[in-house]
Amino acid sequence: MRSVDLNSDMGEGFGPWTIGDGVDEYIMPLISSANIATGFHAGDSTTMAQTVKMAAQYGVSIGAHPGFRDLVGFGRRHMMASADELVNDILYQVGALREIAKLHGLTLQHVKPHGALYMHVARNDEIAELLVEKLHTLSPELMLYAMHGSNVHKVAKRVGHPVVCEFYADRDYDLSGSIVFTRRVDALDPEQVAQKVLRACQEGKVYTVEGKDISIEFDSICIHSDTPGALALVEATYKALHEAGIHIRSPSRS
Amino acid sequence: MRSVDLNSDMGEGFGPWTIGDGVDEYIMPLISSANIATGFHAGDSTTMAQTVKMAAQYGVSIGAHPGFRDLVGFGRRHMMASADELVNDILYQVGALREIAKLHGLTLQHVKPHGALYMHVARNDEIAELLVEKLHTLSPELMLYAMHGSNVHKVAKRVGHPVVCEFYADRDYDLSGSIVFTRRVDALDPEQVAQKVLRACQEGKVYTVEGKDISIEFDSICIHSDTPGALALVEATYKALHEAGIHIRSPSRS
Amino acid sequence: MRSVDLNSDMGEGFGPWTIGDGVDEYIMPLISSANIATGFHAGDSTTMAQTVKMAAQYGVSIGAHPGFRDLVGFGRRHMMASADELVNDILYQVGALREIAKLHGLTLQHVKPHGALYMHVARNDEIAELLVEKLHTLSPELMLYAMHGSNVHKVAKRVGHPVVCEFYADRDYDLSGSIVFTRRVDALDPEQVAQKVLRACQEGKVYTVEGKDISIEFDSICIHSDTPGALALVEATYKALHEAGIHIRSPSRS
Amino acid sequence: MRSVDLNSDMGEGFGPWTIGDGVDEYIMPLISSANIATGFHAGDSTTMAQTVKMAAQYGVSIGAHPGFRDLVGFGRRHMMASADELVNDILYQVGALREIAKLHGLTLQHVKPHGALYMHVARNDEIAELLVEKLHTLSPELMLYAMHGSNVHKVAKRVGHPVVCEFYADRDYDLSGSIVFTRRVDALDPEQVAQKVLRACQEGKVYTVEGKDISIEFDSICIHSDTPGALALVEATYKALHEAGIHIRSPSRS
Repeated sequence: MRSVDLNSDMGEGFGPWTIGDGVDEYIMPLISSANIATGFHAGDSTTMAQTVKMAAQYGVSIGAHPGFRDLVGFGRRHMMASADELVNDILYQVGALREIAKLHGLTLQHVKPHGALYMHVARNDEIAELLVEKLHTLSPELMLYAMHGSNVHKVAKRVGHPVVCEFYADRDYDLSGSIVFTRRVDALDPEQVAQKVLRACQEGKVYTVEGKDISIEFDSICIHSDTPGALALVEATYKALHEAGIHIRSPSRS
Repeated sequence: MRSVDLNSDMGEGFGPWTIGDGVDEYIMPLISSANIATGFHAGDSTTMAQTVKMAAQYGVSIGAHPGFRDLVGFGRRHMMASADELVNDILYQVGALREIAKLHGLTLQHVKPHGALYMHVARNDEIAELLVEKLHTLSPELMLYAMHGSNVHKVAKRVGHPVVCEFYADRDYDLSGSIVFTRRVDALDPEQVAQKVLRACQEGKVYTVEGKDISIEFDSICIHSDTPGALALVEATYKALHEAGIHIRSPSRS
Repeated sequence: MRSVDLNSDMGEGFGPWTIGDGVDEYIMPLISSANIATGFHAGDSTTMAQTVKMAAQYGVSIGAHPGFRDLVGFGRRHMMASADELVNDILYQVGALREIAKLHGLTLQHVKPHGALYMHVARNDEIAELLVEKLHTLSPELMLYAMHGSNVHKVAKRVGHPVVCEFYADRDYDLSGSIVFTRRVDALDPEQVAQKVLRACQEGKVYTVEGKDISIEFDSICIHSDTPGALALVEATYKALHEAGIHIRSPSRS
Repeated sequence: MRSVDLNSDMGEGFGPWTIGDGVDEYIMPLISSANIATGFHAGDSTTMAQTVKMAAQYGVSIGAHPGFRDLVGFGRRHMMASADELVNDILYQVGALREIAKLHGLTLQHVKPHGALYMHVARNDEIAELLVEKLHTLSPELMLYAMHGSNVHKVAKRVGHPVVCEFYADRDYDLSGSIVFTRRVDALDPEQVAQKVLRACQEGKVYTVEGKDISIEFDSICIHSDTPGALALVEATYKALHEAGIHIRSPSRS
């Protein structure tokens, strides 16, 4: 691997509130792609405008990060809505960000559903099909961020819609290649995270909770900005990649 | 006048709820421009999609109808938000509708702020300036619906941004040319409304509450869909214009 | 059966919006218990105050009708929230109504969760246990409306918390004694509904979708106010019970 | 002055978000009265339950802190709602907290409107009258926190409703006795704040922005928990009062 994308969720405050350590401004210069919250699980129009502006300033590619309509639950709680309702909600949020991005001279690179909605499009056929179909009609160039082997990944591949596979630096993997879900992520050791990322980039392998290695395919590394100590994780990862000669570059610039 | 625009607010339900008489489907075929609620005072992404589809079916031009973030107050209560926050909220809503419209093959013709926000851009310099400036940068062709002589009208004229002046068929005028604000509009006589519109179109005059005529300039007739008996008003107006040989045509098709 | 309770959901508008046929004022005089929406799936403080006042006027007993925090989905979409979060949300809503009721001289008779939350407490042990425990600590007299045999019914019986079993006049039953879920209920024949209710009251039996009778136990008849033609159903049921000499009386007045 | 109340706003997070420095747990042990956010401008039912529990643990008296229905604006933006709507919204929020408080064995000591709503009841006759009248009917013992000389203070005095006057430790005063409004409060010097409070307690005087002293009457000191460095301000004030032999005690325990 000569270059890799490094993505993080940005703009996940709401009104006067901040989330995690509130360190968007320090993470932004280190990443290549920002997933910007679009108002349903976090973010509001003014926070979005400020985040887009910051991304523009550091040359970071941006994407929409739409979630379930559940502010108090931060989009982490699954809602049994119809595929039709959810895709309309996603397009609503994508459009909102696209307009604000345009005002600051940026175009959208990608869409990455948030939290429980990310898991829903990964597992549910109906929404995966409908989402890819509508996005492909609207914006055949708008990349979808997804887990390798997830439903939405498979549908996008079949349809020919561009998809970016993610490696989760701050989550554990199991033998099936899935990430191990945890409601609360404890602080992680930055050096260990950086080495795990580097090994994944160089050898294509990750060590699982069962104690064995698996092969892993990805185009982008995700570090969640609300993981405690997120900034240190991003810094260590950035440094390790840099020293190994791997460029951090968004897929639309590769 | 050989032709005139007839606009009405459409898609102002929310989730399972309807407003007024719930007669969008009967009004839509009779109008030339639809102001579609965009989620902050009314409307949700699925209602928006259905309303856009209906507009497409009847060849009606569409615009965004953004409001204050006040569902329970239906955007009728003024909120002391900063111009910056409000313009971001407007752009957010415009973008959301633009995306959904694109999916159904439509482009946006116009923006018409709703309720208390309409009055705010009519009276307040700062927001009128900022709104026109941002819209003009983003979409120099996106028409603004406004009252003749309002702040937003004046700014748009100065900047060279296209503006469409409205005549309110279902509101009373006073000598200053302003509409007389009422919290609750009683049922009106359809024939009287139709004749008032026809006279305004043909003679450019409207009779005021003070008992004198004033001159009136406009490009579009507005009939509110939540006025009780709105459908009968639209039908009578449609018929009167038709019989007088005045075409009902949206500004983007004139 | 000498008397039976007749309950209906009231105050399910939101701000300017109405739901169903908007006939609360005609249904209220005919029922004995009103389930008043408490703001999360429908209802707002002013609608609540108006509905409480109307109930007081007609001597109708009142209860809180709390739902999932999902206005646009009208509380009909299940949300995977923790039992703790949900019980806090329920208590929040119960307290809100209790305060407004007190202002109009009424006390709460009961709590009846709405929509998907009603089904959730019927099926899920953890929330059923936690809800009954907290309600029993707070208000040992506050009745719970529930389906016979549901989890919440069983827990309330065990704990000794008062529970009121419901018969759904406007839903079909299957052989298991469960109601057959439908997303959209078509207009029903008022006379048939009334006769079904009467037979349930007099013989304790209901005819199932499988074509056989089952025995049914209940203290209260529920007719949903958002079923199309709800008023006619309530009127026919009221008349049939009246003519059969069965008094319509709330459980707190029996 | 032998004793004084020290109040602060608590529980102003929302879902996963925190506000200010997120130091409720350190401030709570030092104050005597907590104003708990009740969901409309901040706070959610679970945050409320946790905050009530913490207050119970430290023996802190609690009150409801209702705000405008404006999460994104944190209740700091005035909304032109009717007095009737606003009082219903306040009662809704008071009841919600009362129920949750009861579960944890606490009763409400007071009500203190938040932000723009606090200013509204201070300045507007109609809402001041209606609020006091309704609260007095519902809970003649529920104290109102208010500025000395404000409308709500005068009405409460006239009606005989208990009112607690506040001194704002972290705001500047002008010669009229009003606090000088600022959108953003910069970090203050804890020692200066503590001395200002001490002088107000001992001499009944405060130095104004115009450079002259005015007399000041109050029963409670307010330090905003979202002022940057709030904890240090509370600690310094606590220490200064303690060393001067002035007990920190809530009005319901005095």
